[in-house]
Amino acid sequence: MADLNQPNPAALIAMMGTRARAAARMLAGLPTEAKARALIEAAAALREATPTILAANRIDMERARAADLSPAMLDRLKLDDSRVEGMASGVEAVAGLSDPVGAVIDEATRPNGMVLSRVRIPIGVIGIIYESRPNVTADAAALCVMAGNAAILRGGSEAVESNRAIHRALVAGLEKAGLPGDAVQLVPTTDRAAVGAMLTAEGAIDMIVPRGGKSLVARVQAEARVPVLAHLDGINHVFVHASADPAMAESLVVNAKMRRTGICGAMETLLIDRDYPAAGALIRALAGAACELRGDERARAVEPSLGAATAEDWDTEYLEAIASVAIVDGLDGALGHIAVHSSGHTDAIIAADEKAAERFLAAVDSAIVMWNASTQFADGGEFGLGAEIGIATGRLHARGPVALEGLTTYKWIVRGTGQMRP
Amino acid sequence: MADLNQPNPAALIAMMGTRARAAARMLAGLPTEAKARALIEAAAALREATPTILAANRIDMERARAADLSPAMLDRLKLDDSRVEGMASGVEAVAGLSDPVGAVIDEATRPNGMVLSRVRIPIGVIGIIYESRPNVTADAAALCVMAGNAAILRGGSEAVESNRAIHRALVAGLEKAGLPGDAVQLVPTTDRAAVGAMLTAEGAIDMIVPRGGKSLVARVQAEARVPVLAHLDGINHVFVHASADPAMAESLVVNAKMRRTGICGAMETLLIDRDYPAAGALIRALAGAACELRGDERARAVEPSLGAATAEDWDTEYLEAIASVAIVDGLDGALGHIAVHSSGHTDAIIAADEKAAERFLAAVDSAIVMWNASTQFADGGEFGLGAEIGIATGRLHARGPVALEGLTTYKWIVRGTGQMRP
Repeated sequence: MADLNQPNPAALIAMMGTRARAAARMLAGLPTEAKARALIEAAAALREATPTILAANRIDMERARAADLSPAMLDRLKLDDSRVEGMASGVEAVAGLSDPVGAVIDEATRPNGMVLSRVRIPIGVIGIIYESRPNVTADAAALCVMAGNAAILRGGSEAVESNRAIHRALVAGLEKAGLPGDAVQLVPTTDRAAVGAMLTAEGAIDMIVPRGGKSLVARVQAEARVPVLAHLDGINHVFVHASADPAMAESLVVNAKMRRTGICGAMETLLIDRDYPAAGALIRALAGAACELRGDERARAVEPSLGAATAEDWDTEYLEAIASVAIVDGLDGALGHIAVHSSGHTDAIIAADEKAAERFLAAVDSAIVMWNASTQFADGGEFGLGAEIGIATGRLHARGPVALEGLTTYKWIVRGTGQMRP
Repeated sequence: MADLNQPNPAALIAMMGTRARAAARMLAGLPTEAKARALIEAAAALREATPTILAANRIDMERARAADLSPAMLDRLKLDDSRVEGMASGVEAVAGLSDPVGAVIDEATRPNGMVLSRVRIPIGVIGIIYESRPNVTADAAALCVMAGNAAILRGGSEAVESNRAIHRALVAGLEKAGLPGDAVQLVPTTDRAAVGAMLTAEGAIDMIVPRGGKSLVARVQAEARVPVLAHLDGINHVFVHASADPAMAESLVVNAKMRRTGICGAMETLLIDRDYPAAGALIRALAGAACELRGDERARAVEPSLGAATAEDWDTEYLEAIASVAIVDGLDGALGHIAVHSSGHTDAIIAADEKAAERFLAAVDSAIVMWNASTQFADGGEFGLGAEIGIATGRLHARGPVALEGLTTYKWIVRGTGQMRP
């Protein structure tokens, strides 16, 4: 028989799931104000616990330094007063978002008098699997709770002490406002098998959101039996149409690639219409912004200083100051390239020709398609969602930046007066 | 190297998927009229091919009789003039449904002037896996095409000749209207491994819809890596609240259970409030309608002639004239029973007390919740959707009766004037 103090990972996740389901049923019925008040209490508790959280973080940081983690990982792990304050104000910001739960999607009265409504409801239990950033503990928990869901959190082992301290503060705040502590649970073990147990916890966990690097997302997508909300790659294209205004093209392309090269909305491939008259200047503008460029033969004919792209380059998310460049045969050439190489995240056209732009927007089958705007806008905050739990490139449920609405589903409510089916 | 004339199932499905994707890209851009016209041509082609379809069906029927298939299966398999006409008029009816593709879900202008729209688009490639009813070939294909999707159909091996004849007619009609024949493909082999290949064809098939009995749905849900739209069980409850009008309760309960006992919307468990004053009459009314009843101890105290329910009964979808009956402690007792035993399909309350009814509608976490109406209304046609591809009890994407809208997803369209992210 399993030792309940040391349950196996599957039994542990099943137990957590049962408690989460009970909490989720309670949360699903809460009015907006009750959820918002609980998050404001949680934010206050985070602020109050700052010394405890920072002390816990120091333990994580010492272990991480001893384990020779990279400076980038150490930076992601590190907390200070302003980062804890950032978490707390982030939780408060979520409390101010408009609540999708209870919204009536549509309503109809049938000829027999039955009234049908589709009404938004929480999804239920959300599993969040993340890496070294401890702030995800607070961000993800707040979004889940505001949408009426229970959360099961599994953070990176290098942040275990920080996550536990943040989690304790959050739960103390939620409980102070009368919410069940089981609404936000942290997987207590750093055993990697617990991740596998979450991914296969059908019935206990309704959706998994991985937050982290590509290897985490790839593992989650490969192993999960539970639906996953995620994107693996952001191989985003900007197509500069023959009709594009050269000044706009240069500034948008440089912004799309270089504003921040490490985010998923960054441009990775530049496609230039063979009839665009200022290809050389455009390529030089991007190179002049310190971007390494790898071109196809036609691009290298325009600008011989370019390196040569290999077949792999067209399917690579660089996430640094590198881009591939191809000259394509008009809109159809761009659509063909994008159909083969896009990861379905964000693709943009720069054009003055509205007809060409609308054809691009209709034909490109990505979560986000843009006309005359920088791909770097691919972000829940920039889209006016107030926050985001992630960006999804799957085809079902929620796509693109996902915030509270993507953490809900719907049910049909039928109100009758005794109707029987003939 | 694989013999292309006899590819292995995975290679076969991959090839079909590639052709389906190309067809889906073409369909996604078609105006409503073009899709409707193609379906009307397909319906005409079905009518014209009636002799061929019936000849093919006779071959299937002979083989089925030789294989000693049950009379129920033979009936599902059998086609005649009126059933082919039913298929054709069903396809025409789908052509008349309103097209969800292109609908703007919401739109917003950001402070920087970018205009964001969420627009409905087809899902892409839908896999349909079904059993002996050959009419699914036409029904499912029509719904997929009208929503702009390509379909990969895998019918039951006992209907192989009928399905091929129906499929040939459909494709001839679609092609006559200028649609690609690859928009509707029939898996040519009866090799069961082809089903497994469809279920794991991530990237090639975007969603699987199983149409058939519980063992098919269970296999699909267990093995699929592709998202599945389905319900496994319809363990539906009717709760008769203390405030229910006895005449309404009797007629609704009898209708919910006995109108057709074999459909997924049929009531399987009757829950009676201990304070409902006419429990004995209600139980006798249902028993008098020739329903076998299995009660808990309290129900048997009210009506000693009842058989005894075992623990299993509360989790059983009878799909015949049998129901389980329990007396529960008010609304909370009913909610507790339903939380444990409902399959998330359809659950109903009969009550005059509006407050109790609204609490039930809010708290029960099923795809469809009803107040004072028969659970037998759980059907796309009855919901005014014009048709249905199936009823879903999953929590994500589409729930309850699913028709054209459930065969679509959305993308974000951003229209700018040169906005860069600061």
